[in-house]
Amino acid sequence: MRPSGRTASQIRPVTITRNFTCHAEGSVLIEFGNTKVLCNATVEEGVPRFMKGQGKGWITAEYSMLPRSTHTRSQREAARGKQGGRTLEIQRLIARSLRAAVDLKLLGENTLTLDCDVIQADGGTRTASITGACVAMVDALTYMRNKGIIKTNPLKHMIAALSVGICDGQPVSDLEYIEDSKAETDMNVVMTETGKLIEVQGTAEGEAFSFEEMSEMLELAKHGLRELFDIQKAALA
Amino acid sequence: MRPSGRTASQIRPVTITRNFTCHAEGSVLIEFGNTKVLCNATVEEGVPRFMKGQGKGWITAEYSMLPRSTHTRSQREAARGKQGGRTLEIQRLIARSLRAAVDLKLLGENTLTLDCDVIQADGGTRTASITGACVAMVDALTYMRNKGIIKTNPLKHMIAALSVGICDGQPVSDLEYIEDSKAETDMNVVMTETGKLIEVQGTAEGEAFSFEEMSEMLELAKHGLRELFDIQKAALA
Amino acid sequence: MRPSGRTASQIRPVTITRNFTCHAEGSVLIEFGNTKVLCNATVEEGVPRFMKGQGKGWITAEYSMLPRSTHTRSQREAARGKQGGRTLEIQRLIARSLRAAVDLKLLGENTLTLDCDVIQADGGTRTASITGACVAMVDALTYMRNKGIIKTNPLKHMIAALSVGICDGQPVSDLEYIEDSKAETDMNVVMTETGKLIEVQGTAEGEAFSFEEMSEMLELAKHGLRELFDIQKAALA
Amino acid sequence: MRPSGRTASQIRPVTITRNFTCHAEGSVLIEFGNTKVLCNATVEEGVPRFMKGQGKGWITAEYSMLPRSTHTRSQREAARGKQGGRTLEIQRLIARSLRAAVDLKLLGENTLTLDCDVIQADGGTRTASITGACVAMVDALTYMRNKGIIKTNPLKHMIAALSVGICDGQPVSDLEYIEDSKAETDMNVVMTETGKLIEVQGTAEGEAFSFEEMSEMLELAKHGLRELFDIQKAALA
Amino acid sequence: MRPSGRTASQIRPVTITRNFTCHAEGSVLIEFGNTKVLCNATVEEGVPRFMKGQGKGWITAEYSMLPRSTHTRSQREAARGKQGGRTLEIQRLIARSLRAAVDLKLLGENTLTLDCDVIQADGGTRTASITGACVAMVDALTYMRNKGIIKTNPLKHMIAALSVGICDGQPVSDLEYIEDSKAETDMNVVMTETGKLIEVQGTAEGEAFSFEEMSEMLELAKHGLRELFDIQKAALA
Amino acid sequence: MRPSGRTASQIRPVTITRNFTCHAEGSVLIEFGNTKVLCNATVEEGVPRFMKGQGKGWITAEYSMLPRSTHTRSQREAARGKQGGRTLEIQRLIARSLRAAVDLKLLGENTLTLDCDVIQADGGTRTASITGACVAMVDALTYMRNKGIIKTNPLKHMIAALSVGICDGQPVSDLEYIEDSKAETDMNVVMTETGKLIEVQGTAEGEAFSFEEMSEMLELAKHGLRELFDIQKAALA
Repeated sequence: MRPSGRTASQIRPVTITRNFTCHAEGSVLIEFGNTKVLCNATVEEGVPRFMKGQGKGWITAEYSMLPRSTHTRSQREAARGKQGGRTLEIQRLIARSLRAAVDLKLLGENTLTLDCDVIQADGGTRTASITGACVAMVDALTYMRNKGIIKTNPLKHMIAALSVGICDGQPVSDLEYIEDSKAETDMNVVMTETGKLIEVQGTAEGEAFSFEEMSEMLELAKHGLRELFDIQKAALA
Repeated sequence: MRPSGRTASQIRPVTITRNFTCHAEGSVLIEFGNTKVLCNATVEEGVPRFMKGQGKGWITAEYSMLPRSTHTRSQREAARGKQGGRTLEIQRLIARSLRAAVDLKLLGENTLTLDCDVIQADGGTRTASITGACVAMVDALTYMRNKGIIKTNPLKHMIAALSVGICDGQPVSDLEYIEDSKAETDMNVVMTETGKLIEVQGTAEGEAFSFEEMSEMLELAKHGLRELFDIQKAALA
Repeated sequence: MRPSGRTASQIRPVTITRNFTCHAEGSVLIEFGNTKVLCNATVEEGVPRFMKGQGKGWITAEYSMLPRSTHTRSQREAARGKQGGRTLEIQRLIARSLRAAVDLKLLGENTLTLDCDVIQADGGTRTASITGACVAMVDALTYMRNKGIIKTNPLKHMIAALSVGICDGQPVSDLEYIEDSKAETDMNVVMTETGKLIEVQGTAEGEAFSFEEMSEMLELAKHGLRELFDIQKAALA
Repeated sequence: MRPSGRTASQIRPVTITRNFTCHAEGSVLIEFGNTKVLCNATVEEGVPRFMKGQGKGWITAEYSMLPRSTHTRSQREAARGKQGGRTLEIQRLIARSLRAAVDLKLLGENTLTLDCDVIQADGGTRTASITGACVAMVDALTYMRNKGIIKTNPLKHMIAALSVGICDGQPVSDLEYIEDSKAETDMNVVMTETGKLIEVQGTAEGEAFSFEEMSEMLELAKHGLRELFDIQKAALA
Repeated sequence: MRPSGRTASQIRPVTITRNFTCHAEGSVLIEFGNTKVLCNATVEEGVPRFMKGQGKGWITAEYSMLPRSTHTRSQREAARGKQGGRTLEIQRLIARSLRAAVDLKLLGENTLTLDCDVIQADGGTRTASITGACVAMVDALTYMRNKGIIKTNPLKHMIAALSVGICDGQPVSDLEYIEDSKAETDMNVVMTETGKLIEVQGTAEGEAFSFEEMSEMLELAKHGLRELFDIQKAALA
Repeated sequence: MRPSGRTASQIRPVTITRNFTCHAEGSVLIEFGNTKVLCNATVEEGVPRFMKGQGKGWITAEYSMLPRSTHTRSQREAARGKQGGRTLEIQRLIARSLRAAVDLKLLGENTLTLDCDVIQADGGTRTASITGACVAMVDALTYMRNKGIIKTNPLKHMIAALSVGICDGQPVSDLEYIEDSKAETDMNVVMTETGKLIEVQGTAEGEAFSFEEMSEMLELAKHGLRELFDIQKAALA
């Protein structure tokens, strides 16, 4: 029995609120149970120096947890004077995943920045960020077409992400914090709506996992991600 | 006529939502029109080194704007590697103001940290932060008494803050961004509910202001702050 | 009775030495009793990026205390690797005040930098900095006209600054360190020679202050600032 | 046909040189073809603050590329003033993997630091680092037993790591730089000598990959890792 | 003929003003012609961590140039966020030289910090700093004896420093900026009053120098340093 | 008797291995006994901003010790977030010395960067770096001529460096760590193959040294450097 009473394959209730703030070209609040992430998409002309002159666009992401989004307060990274390794790792993952969803040539020499700020954390903030940021990105791409910045929709397919893992020897889907903190294995899967993989990151926290467990976790992820794509579609309808 | 149709002394609709997030000992979302600030209060045992051994508590604050809380995206301070002068100035003001509301001896050797994160900005974010943080602090003090950490309520009086200024030669109250950006003078006033002043910071942005205008702005502030104290009280009732 | 034997409205002896160092376009040592600040003005072609193409000039300031300008040694900010919040706040105040004294259009696309380095501190270093920097700036503007860099004097009016406060319940002018450290309220006032206000920053250090006390402090400031304008004029004669 | 003439499942020649430098408690130069990484293990008494008092040891790692280990010179991170996201991500991966190989309780309150410095890079530096660092760690653990610092060997099992990927639609093993830079998918696998997984990190660089391709890459990795365990054993014999 | 009309071996007029500021335990303004350096000595109880428990004291130094001590303004190191290589090199030299003048055991577990701040620069700031800091240190040691912090004078001998060099093929003493900037060789010599060497740092800026020129420069330095010891003694009398 | 059994004037066995790594335009591993430094030369088009438009090239250097190149592990500078004073001092010395060996006009607007990374340290790392970097630079200059980047060899003369010192009252050559750590005086000498001096840096670590000892050390250095020039020549033959 899981702490929330969910079955092994059951994900938490997910809600997606678009236009959560008024200034961003795309602004989504995504909730996976008690995990709440604000995903804001910004459209800017031009690309970073290393991309110049290729006629292609760029997509980048930044991730942050509000200091008191967690049970105990963590130090503000701006006050510490640097972003931690975990933050950098997550924002690199978010950006890489989103770039895999878009034809950068069709984006023109423009940059999309996805800011994912965790308002409240209860496990799965990086996968919630990716899933919410994809919706915010779609809104920003619509904005770009409406403004005539781009002519063709550069979106290749939606993407979404889900965390799965092994708790007490059993593969489970969408771990909340209390499960995550004692899981033997934690795996984040980013998939396209066409059922292909973008990222798979599995980590043995305590015990090494078998190739069979790996397969079972991937199956769980595939199943849960199907639901997430439906929820994204409903939100965008 | 003001852009919003308000009279010179009229403040924007203010709403205060308590328990906005679930982990903090006090968590308040305060809205002044389109300005939205999340104020989280954290209670921690112990005090910073320079306060040790005095039998007194400490109150500190941190302020940040989400990168896309504004019309155009501003660089994330954590990514830049340091907090800007404006941020430091504001969080020093917030903390100083809140310390003036509390008897630090009654707080014991405990620290309160008030995190004020601007979700959406439309002028007056520092005064909204102070006004909201005071409510979050009251909730945190209640938590401390309920947990037996302190025995007596250390709150001396509520405080609230309001921005006033001079636009097109006329003193006005609670400036939104469009007014603020072209105001000749901008003044932030922090007051106690007993009608005394904690901070007065008036700045000529364009034209120097007369001693008479100074008095008129103070009067406007006093009037608007009365309303804010009523709103705080209603929220805490 | 004040520690120095001064009356409530009496400011300390103030001396202004021009051409204190030989390289700067304006170089002033200003002394308020034992407070000594070296104010160097530098003229440079061009303006910061955010000002480019507007045909206007820029004025900026930097403030620092020598590590042993105070009773006990404070850590050198260059060694710590960052400027503290107090430093940033003060140098922003100095620059803002000086910009209010000058018609930036008449300055052309040139930048004035005012370096205010505290050699010895005994209270009121920020107001001494502003008062001295204004004189150094006048010398730098004269240099610019002599060199043909500008044709018209862009100075709108002199500015000066004074600290006032409430000690033992009594409003007093130009606090030295021993008074400042135990004052209930501290207020810095920046005024034009035409009697208008540029900045008013009043802070309750211990007790909140009434609107009446606010008025009394402003009156004291106005009176003391009159004397400072006379001293500036004599120094520039 | 692969650039090196290797078959799809063939790894590059791997050599492990122990005692490469004379000061470290374990010092290994590992070579995967032209990729050369120096892995130094340091034994130090005590553990980081967050581990104190648990009676357990700690294992950490640092990774760096010499500026000219690559085709073009990259900026030295010490000169830039910070470690990049890629560096932090890799050293977190190395440390996490090694901790999974050791019973931290048997290590006592001691810390092992594994410095992995890339002397020459040709793809697969992170997996070479893990594979070499495990050997250096074994030497350091032997040193600890010889010195009487620990009594029991805390090693649970050897670990090794290998990169696999998809190039021109074909799964291949142990990619060198020229393959890595144009691979559609890149996957790093860390395994125990008992055939269980520690880390799986697969990333679609260009095209998303299918669940079948995922399985094929895992098979390739399992096969290549068997060889690496033999090479480690021979080196330690 | 030298720009100043001095002979090859003639040093500039040197003045030493003690008690230049009022808070430091030793405060000296030293002038070598137009070069002016303020040297403040601070006495603090305790020693840095790496010196603890040895029953010995420590002497350290910090060096800085005011931004406008030079012909053109240089960026403030506190604003840049780090001290440059030249600054670190000079303050290491100053501290090392002063430590060679003192018996650290007789100093007890106390720390002397010598702050050398260049008010105005015209060549030779590092040697002026050492020469002036030695006098400030003597005053601080006297203070320590007067306060009973130490019983015996730990000074082994006075030290002083002088720059010599080769200009237009001719060895010269005490170079001012205009000579320094075009010298072929620049050499800084730190000597004890007993005629022994503490530091010799000779650098070919343009042309390599011969062993004979090396000897001639050392002779010039020895001669000029004799004068400096007389000036130090007179100042301390 | 010296710890190694060497005579006072005898240097350690020195070996120079060219083409140690494969990517750099010059790559030299230099060994002075147990001291091993990898010196990589990089050729890049263009010069730093302050050199632009002068038609001259630039030579710069970076120095670093691998954390475990020494007996105990030292903190990685990239992790600390800044290069220490010793590092900056050494890399400034290396670069200055190499620039003295080259006619920068003949180099064209190109930059040479010499990365000196200490693999294993046993005293004399800075002088080994200079001696090895000169050979790597020669290889890079040959590369530039072969590629047609420059037409004339800009090398004026080879340079080499050696440390000498005074141990137990006796001048000795090429100190290893055990001697260096207890030497009374340490002196680094950089010389041209034509027998002229580029840098002389002598430091009294414990006892001040006489002018006679200074001469003796210089003689020892001259003698040892002759041998180093022969070794360089043999390596380049």
